[in-house]
Amino acid sequence: MASELETGLPSVRHLQMLVRDKAHVRVMLTTGEELQGKIRWQDPHCLCLLADDQRTRLVWFHSLAYVEIIPLS
Amino acid sequence: MASELETGLPSVRHLQMLVRDKAHVRVMLTTGEELQGKIRWQDPHCLCLLADDQRTRLVWFHSLAYVEIIPLS
Amino acid sequence: MASELETGLPSVRHLQMLVRDKAHVRVMLTTGEELQGKIRWQDPHCLCLLADDQRTRLVWFHSLAYVEIIPLS
Amino acid sequence: MASELETGLPSVRHLQMLVRDKAHVRVMLTTGEELQGKIRWQDPHCLCLLADDQRTRLVWFHSLAYVEIIPLS
Amino acid sequence: MASELETGLPSVRHLQMLVRDKAHVRVMLTTGEELQGKIRWQDPHCLCLLADDQRTRLVWFHSLAYVEIIPLS
Amino acid sequence: MASELETGLPSVRHLQMLVRDKAHVRVMLTTGEELQGKIRWQDPHCLCLLADDQRTRLVWFHSLAYVEIIPLS
Repeated sequence: MASELETGLPSVRHLQMLVRDKAHVRVMLTTGEELQGKIRWQDPHCLCLLADDQRTRLVWFHSLAYVEIIPLS
Repeated sequence: MASELETGLPSVRHLQMLVRDKAHVRVMLTTGEELQGKIRWQDPHCLCLLADDQRTRLVWFHSLAYVEIIPLS
Repeated sequence: MASELETGLPSVRHLQMLVRDKAHVRVMLTTGEELQGKIRWQDPHCLCLLADDQRTRLVWFHSLAYVEIIPLS
Repeated sequence: MASELETGLPSVRHLQMLVRDKAHVRVMLTTGEELQGKIRWQDPHCLCLLADDQRTRLVWFHSLAYVEIIPLS
Repeated sequence: MASELETGLPSVRHLQMLVRDKAHVRVMLTTGEELQGKIRWQDPHCLCLLADDQRTRLVWFHSLAYVEIIPLS
Repeated sequence: MASELETGLPSVRHLQMLVRDKAHVRVMLTTGEELQGKIRWQDPHCLCLLADDQRTRLVWFHSLAYVEIIPLS
């Protein structure tokens, strides 16, 4: 596990874009649980998610299946 | 985890071929969830999948079971 | 796995803040089990959780999905 | 993760033997799904399996529980 | 994975204390299975558990969710 | 992942003893599946198990929860 964010990687940059744009995202965990909200920041271990219920969750990457933007309806 | 794509590895090259050919693929996750679409790019952490519902999903390799090409029917 | 706590990382610092503040947290495991209590300390492998039942649990990071603060009601 | 196949390891050599012999194998995934076919190649990340349905699947090692030869009946 | 036990880490020391004290522990696995017994030793890969049924089990850390002391009743 | 067997580790030595003694073992996987048989060899990635059905299975360590000796009845 790198201790620095690998900012040259497309996946890291994609997440940084989601942070910058305050995108509304759906985060699917490997448990099958789904979280929705905005990504506040990432580091090499975790995403910090401000969920739609206004709670801040520290989510470990190892528990992530995928992340997608929720389209504006 | 390598921070550079190991382009000499057969699995990385197989995925690059799927990207180049815009192949229609089935991505089976370790959760049992199945995604279908086209792989846009890979990096050492993730696949970027343009799913058939036109949503872009960032899928972590650690949550992948297997990938296969969907044959033309 | 680092053998020193990477105190420069936001996720590590967020957890240190939860320890310092004796915050009441909900810890969601990848098994779907949920633990509640206060984080006593972290090291690179584990969280030590003083659960609401007054039992001390050593929880491995690899089994964590997310951590959140339980709001005062 | 090594970026070279560790050809001195018994498990790697066992798999190479299965490739060479075009052995008919059963691949049990950690999801509980079972695949059958022939292993085309391995690299440090994946097995390439030509399944009995003639589809080629790229299977990640991290999703494998075990591999066994299916006896001739 | 370190090949030496990192005896400076609080989690390793906590487990060493459980070994020394012959504490009666509950070991929760990521499968949801629960084992009870006494920890005989640890190394960087495994706990050796003398279970209450007097069987010795070698338990891999990657399958552990948490460990707790069972209070004297 | 080490590419050499770490023969100084108690867990590796415990498994080597099970191999040498042709012990009858129960191998519990993280999937909840249980295999029984004799361990033929180990390397840093896998156990090779000669199961009671006389099939040889290559079992990845990452899918193991625990191993125990089945007592003579």
